[in-house]
Amino acid sequence: MAQKLDAAQRDVALGELGAWKMVDGRDALTRTLKFADFSAAFGFMTRVALAAEKLDHHPEWSNVWNRVEITLSTHDAGGLTQRDIDLAKTIDRLAGPTAG
Amino acid sequence: MAQKLDAAQRDVALGELGAWKMVDGRDALTRTLKFADFSAAFGFMTRVALAAEKLDHHPEWSNVWNRVEITLSTHDAGGLTQRDIDLAKTIDRLAGPTAG
Repeated sequence: MAQKLDAAQRDVALGELGAWKMVDGRDALTRTLKFADFSAAFGFMTRVALAAEKLDHHPEWSNVWNRVEITLSTHDAGGLTQRDIDLAKTIDRLAGPTAG
Repeated sequence: MAQKLDAAQRDVALGELGAWKMVDGRDALTRTLKFADFSAAFGFMTRVALAAEKLDHHPEWSNVWNRVEITLSTHDAGGLTQRDIDLAKTIDRLAGPTAG
């Protein structure tokens, strides 16, 4: 099972993940992305869904029209693990430089 | 533009839509569905996304693993319209009798 990141590991990871921030009161990462429209937003979600299924690690997420809000945390570990960092990096790669 | 349903129209619609309930403090409908796993949940979401795009009316929704929570309301009208009822019926048809 994935181990929770300690404070130092989490700070290093957050430094690498510019677009993500910690969720208030929870050991979890969040990022909100905006797209041109629903089609673009859901197209992005579909690519993330495929990647998440492959990594066997899934986001908590919501969508309203062109907006996607993603929260990452590892339920089994009760907080952030390397699996969340890996998924966050994959999401950033799929989002590309323009989303956000 | 779609007109907001009046109280009588809303009650008739709610009577037809067994699985949906009103959101507390908001003129909106909500339904939560559970599936076997993430793959099944996201497969369902993909079908709803295609239908929503076709209807040009989109849900507010969130997903955590096998769970999908959907809220319907018409932003332009500031509340429930026939477009929400139509989308709710489409979602129920896609969900089938087994989703919970």
